[in-house]
Amino acid sequence: MMDLKAYLEDKRQIINTALKKILNRFTHHDRLIQAMTYSLMAGGKRIRPILCLSAVDAVGGQYTDNIINAACAIEIIHTYSLIHDDLPAMDNDRLRRGKPTCHVQFDEATAILAGDALLTLAFDLLSSAEASKSEPAAKWLRVIHIMTTAAGHKGMIEGQMLDILNEGESVSLDKLKTMHALKTGALIEASVVSGGILGGGNDNQIDALMQYGKNIGLAFQVVDDILNVEGDPLILGKDTGTDAARNKSTYPALMGIEASKRFAAELLNNALQALGHFDKNTIYLREIAAYIISRKK
Amino acid sequence: MMDLKAYLEDKRQIINTALKKILNRFTHHDRLIQAMTYSLMAGGKRIRPILCLSAVDAVGGQYTDNIINAACAIEIIHTYSLIHDDLPAMDNDRLRRGKPTCHVQFDEATAILAGDALLTLAFDLLSSAEASKSEPAAKWLRVIHIMTTAAGHKGMIEGQMLDILNEGESVSLDKLKTMHALKTGALIEASVVSGGILGGGNDNQIDALMQYGKNIGLAFQVVDDILNVEGDPLILGKDTGTDAARNKSTYPALMGIEASKRFAAELLNNALQALGHFDKNTIYLREIAAYIISRKK
Repeated sequence: MMDLKAYLEDKRQIINTALKKILNRFTHHDRLIQAMTYSLMAGGKRIRPILCLSAVDAVGGQYTDNIINAACAIEIIHTYSLIHDDLPAMDNDRLRRGKPTCHVQFDEATAILAGDALLTLAFDLLSSAEASKSEPAAKWLRVIHIMTTAAGHKGMIEGQMLDILNEGESVSLDKLKTMHALKTGALIEASVVSGGILGGGNDNQIDALMQYGKNIGLAFQVVDDILNVEGDPLILGKDTGTDAARNKSTYPALMGIEASKRFAAELLNNALQALGHFDKNTIYLREIAAYIISRKK
Repeated sequence: MMDLKAYLEDKRQIINTALKKILNRFTHHDRLIQAMTYSLMAGGKRIRPILCLSAVDAVGGQYTDNIINAACAIEIIHTYSLIHDDLPAMDNDRLRRGKPTCHVQFDEATAILAGDALLTLAFDLLSSAEASKSEPAAKWLRVIHIMTTAAGHKGMIEGQMLDILNEGESVSLDKLKTMHALKTGALIEASVVSGGILGGGNDNQIDALMQYGKNIGLAFQVVDDILNVEGDPLILGKDTGTDAARNKSTYPALMGIEASKRFAAELLNNALQALGHFDKNTIYLREIAAYIISRKK
């Protein structure tokens, strides 16, 4: 059995190779495609598509080209959301992963269009899957619907809207949880669930994956907040203490740092419990959950 | 038989009622939903969804709720593109149909997110169609794929990118045709083709509808350019001569006004010829094509 680091690297390779193949299909290499490629290949951790593939493993499915494309579609949706969130009218971020953000590298109009084009490309990939006996058209429609729900006005976009509206405001813990469930949780949950569906999981398995996804999605954000308080800037690759300086509502700010750690541990426990019914195929989903809690960057 | 005006009004009612029903499903009336509703119900002509429904008529199909929702999805994609095109970083338009544009009425961040949410909503509607015997899941996947192709980096978004890159430049007639085929033609063509598919048209019919759509899509833009030269500002509801003042590449500027009119007539003729194989059900498609050429606003 591979250790987690090798496993993650292996999956990352699969995703990066497939993303390059998708981009290489574009015969016209103009500014729009350049901007899409720039942001998509900027060195993301690929945690969402990896979770999707791990869920396929968990239900004993095989990676078909269609399924790998679906995992790529999730990363493409994630990338579009980062490009738009970074825009001057939104979070106005000039750097991401140490590189200029899309609108800084290109310009604002190109960044808006590149985001729009990536979002559309994701549904293009999901709808061009060759329907087969193991993955009939109805399954693909279901996965597209799961993605639109996670990404849309009842999911990720609503979370970003709430984040902007709440900026500088002190929000309740319940509101913070709702906002994060929408902004980051929904797409993480959708990644795991769609992997389970495409991999041929049964209803019980998919339900368990949904619970797992909900819990690690929230845990991911809680740990992010904790690292902003007591992480090592050298390991993180970015400054710490910025949330407190901006008076941002975070889990440590609202619950205290120790309670935040206990909360993260509780979420991990919930995620692992949800996988209780599964056999040994969930080993990597379990390890990824533990990694999300213990990560230093 | 209804006259064209009554026919268009009848279809517009169907679309507006369905759009309101879609919007009323949203239980949370927050800023995001308000902005989406504001732009979607700002009084558009609904020409794309009407073309979709007319194509259903042309192939002898029935309007199911699913098909009406698909027509609405097209109008929703069109509306998202208008919101994003109007943004300060793009065309920087402050008025549309006599009302403040979305980012003026709300703000830039909300307008970006409302556009994103509308684009996602369109695919949400198309993927939530209850598959039935006459409209199996594979048909819906096909329509989603047609929409992503028309709206994406090989279609509408690429057209807007070229429009921005070419601003202030003198472009060749071929380039102008390509840009418009992408920017406005692709979605108009997709409207007619998807109506033909969902209505149960055969391959010959769908091919004819594609040719029809290509020609009226281009004609629509040529007539827009002509009206900017010699339209009546009082009837148009907006200033004329603005293209020439901005030194914009248009059909009249590149071909002259008389040749532009001949070109529009030729496109109309091509569109009508394409429908040659059909029976009397294409009467309204023919009338809409003639109306696009002869319209005064």
